[in-house]
Amino acid sequence: MQAYQIQMADTKRTHVQTKLKMETTTIHVSTSISMDLYPKFPKEDGVLVVCNGENGVSAAHQFSDHHHHLLSDSTDSADHDHDHDLKHPRIPGWFAEHCPIWPGQAHFLKVEKILFQGSSKYQSMMVFQSSAYGKVFVLDGALQLTEKDECSYQEMMTHLPLCSIPNPNKVLLIGGGDGGILREISRHSSVEQIDICEIDSMLVDVYKRFFPDIAVGYDDPRVSLHVTDGIAFLECSNAVGNYDAIIVDAFDPIRHDHELFETSFLELVAKALIPGGVLCIQAESIWFGSLDIGMLVTKCRQIFRGSVEYAWTIVPAYPSGVIGFLLCSTEGPPVNFKIPINAIDPNESYGVAKTPLKFYNSEVHSASFCLPSFAKKIMIDSQLINGRTMNGVGTTTTTMSFSSLHDK
Amino acid sequence: MQAYQIQMADTKRTHVQTKLKMETTTIHVSTSISMDLYPKFPKEDGVLVVCNGENGVSAAHQFSDHHHHLLSDSTDSADHDHDHDLKHPRIPGWFAEHCPIWPGQAHFLKVEKILFQGSSKYQSMMVFQSSAYGKVFVLDGALQLTEKDECSYQEMMTHLPLCSIPNPNKVLLIGGGDGGILREISRHSSVEQIDICEIDSMLVDVYKRFFPDIAVGYDDPRVSLHVTDGIAFLECSNAVGNYDAIIVDAFDPIRHDHELFETSFLELVAKALIPGGVLCIQAESIWFGSLDIGMLVTKCRQIFRGSVEYAWTIVPAYPSGVIGFLLCSTEGPPVNFKIPINAIDPNESYGVAKTPLKFYNSEVHSASFCLPSFAKKIMIDSQLINGRTMNGVGTTTTTMSFSSLHDK
Repeated sequence: MQAYQIQMADTKRTHVQTKLKMETTTIHVSTSISMDLYPKFPKEDGVLVVCNGENGVSAAHQFSDHHHHLLSDSTDSADHDHDHDLKHPRIPGWFAEHCPIWPGQAHFLKVEKILFQGSSKYQSMMVFQSSAYGKVFVLDGALQLTEKDECSYQEMMTHLPLCSIPNPNKVLLIGGGDGGILREISRHSSVEQIDICEIDSMLVDVYKRFFPDIAVGYDDPRVSLHVTDGIAFLECSNAVGNYDAIIVDAFDPIRHDHELFETSFLELVAKALIPGGVLCIQAESIWFGSLDIGMLVTKCRQIFRGSVEYAWTIVPAYPSGVIGFLLCSTEGPPVNFKIPINAIDPNESYGVAKTPLKFYNSEVHSASFCLPSFAKKIMIDSQLINGRTMNGVGTTTTTMSFSSLHDK
Repeated sequence: MQAYQIQMADTKRTHVQTKLKMETTTIHVSTSISMDLYPKFPKEDGVLVVCNGENGVSAAHQFSDHHHHLLSDSTDSADHDHDHDLKHPRIPGWFAEHCPIWPGQAHFLKVEKILFQGSSKYQSMMVFQSSAYGKVFVLDGALQLTEKDECSYQEMMTHLPLCSIPNPNKVLLIGGGDGGILREISRHSSVEQIDICEIDSMLVDVYKRFFPDIAVGYDDPRVSLHVTDGIAFLECSNAVGNYDAIIVDAFDPIRHDHELFETSFLELVAKALIPGGVLCIQAESIWFGSLDIGMLVTKCRQIFRGSVEYAWTIVPAYPSGVIGFLLCSTEGPPVNFKIPINAIDPNESYGVAKTPLKFYNSEVHSASFCLPSFAKKIMIDSQLINGRTMNGVGTTTTTMSFSSLHDK
């Protein structure tokens, strides 16, 4: 029996906070990719044990002879009497995702087989076959995507910005190392250049090995992979007015004080966009109050000086089943995000994608901007306050969060 | 210490299958309600234990002195080595909802305090205070609603049909004993008569006691509560062409062979509606394949002979975070469900509701009919097949389900 233990990489958050200018490595997809980043690549059919460490991973399974190796669970069972305020429940054979910003709930997925575990110098990764959602990718203990519902996230995050502008030409993706957004960008024949900044090349390799239908995005010859931090890339490249669209698919920007929502980063993005260029960035579930979306909208209106809108889509494997996006355009030709002027022709070439769109269509595009009344109120409030700001009355921002109407 | 054990009522499913004509009891809301239906009403501050029985309830908690009484869990801990294919995982102090039609996943809610447990002659009920969703009502082990997100379900289920027709006058609600849909109907000043068929008067009483903001719907003097089965009510009342709208909020119509989707029931409903009258009935998540929505749409088009549409909304406490509705209109003045011609004026009286709408608005109304491509395809297919049927080519129905595009 071999036991693989996840080494926690404390550098996960650190690497995106490193603002030092650094040399960027550009790997074109034809380049062969080094395999020596796999220090702990397990045999796929081996006996695997996942430790319940700080990363919240709670799956444990052995597949060869149906015995269990429940490292922490066997310990826990003796402690049941002290578990009544257990914050992170665990069940052998199941993966648990706890929502740190909405405690008191957890979503469990049954693990059929653990396919991979390992750590890069940045983060830990796990791939498992679930019984309900196909293969699942876990990053530092947090569910990143599942085969079952990745279509919704990837298609909406890509086509909401790209279908809102005429003939996107150059696109930058920050994060999104899985390749699914690349696959979706690939459907746009007007695009000539696709840059992706993904700091962790091991993540790319793991996706290529276990999720070929997602990582297929790298097969598009227009793609250049830059193995570097996105902030450093923007600072180094001095790409003023270069991109028609920038998509930021980074890990867990769940708080409005996250560095990806800092003025300095957003200004870098705005500077790198052409006039009338667009940004799409993940912006949490409308059911959560952790992200002060009103404040963010106000801030983005000041920085981008074009349109700023909030949209959302459904992803059942994510906490609350919903995820949001913030869409911003820079000063220039006006962008109405709610009307897809650059619709995808379903009969057109799929690019490198093997199948037609599963989720996105023009009606869903427009519908995704329709907000429930409790969320709409926040947007209206922020618009009013922004209006006042623009008129020089003040710089007050709303502190109301989406959850405030629900708090009892 | 007192221990309350839920008695399983096997009659739950039976009562709706009983098609015998029966005398109906009409209780006007001014009537005092008998309390003798509470055979096991616990002290609210007592020490409560929930047994892990067949009903799937897995919460266990003691509140007076922070000791635990984990009936089945203490047994389970010894069995950990045999649990690797555990279908219904349990954690002390947490309520688990397993989705029977999408196995391999479970949503857990932390229990702060169990407020009520008991059984009527039809079903078991539990009310608990959760830490994440406010108070939660559980029926036969299945989560029915939470204070946090009930607004979405109740508002959409009510206003989708009522805002699609001009001046609704008489409305029938089948099920929905909690009172939330009554509260929403109450916002419509054109309505003069609201009949509700709820077979279980204990359920009504429990909601009145623990969820006053929901059961407030019963305070509307236009409401008549008929303590009877909805099918029997329709058969007895011979209410031909009586109702402008019928809303069916029944327990778990998750399979297309459920009796609520049987031709005989749908024909009863169609008969009870005026020409151009509308039905709204719960119709599962678009992420699930258990309900053959294509077949249902085809069937409803044949029975109702007006418009038939599928809409959906988000409810994070429900499996997959989404729930769907089937909307049908009878032959007569045409109904376009996608355009709310009878919009609610937010400045109008709330009826008996204490607060303005939290979720519903006219934009969300129209957006709820925009389907992801995988679901849209089903609707298009069923429409084509229905078209063929209407032209006498055949009676074939599509067997494609929403999940088929996702199955790997």
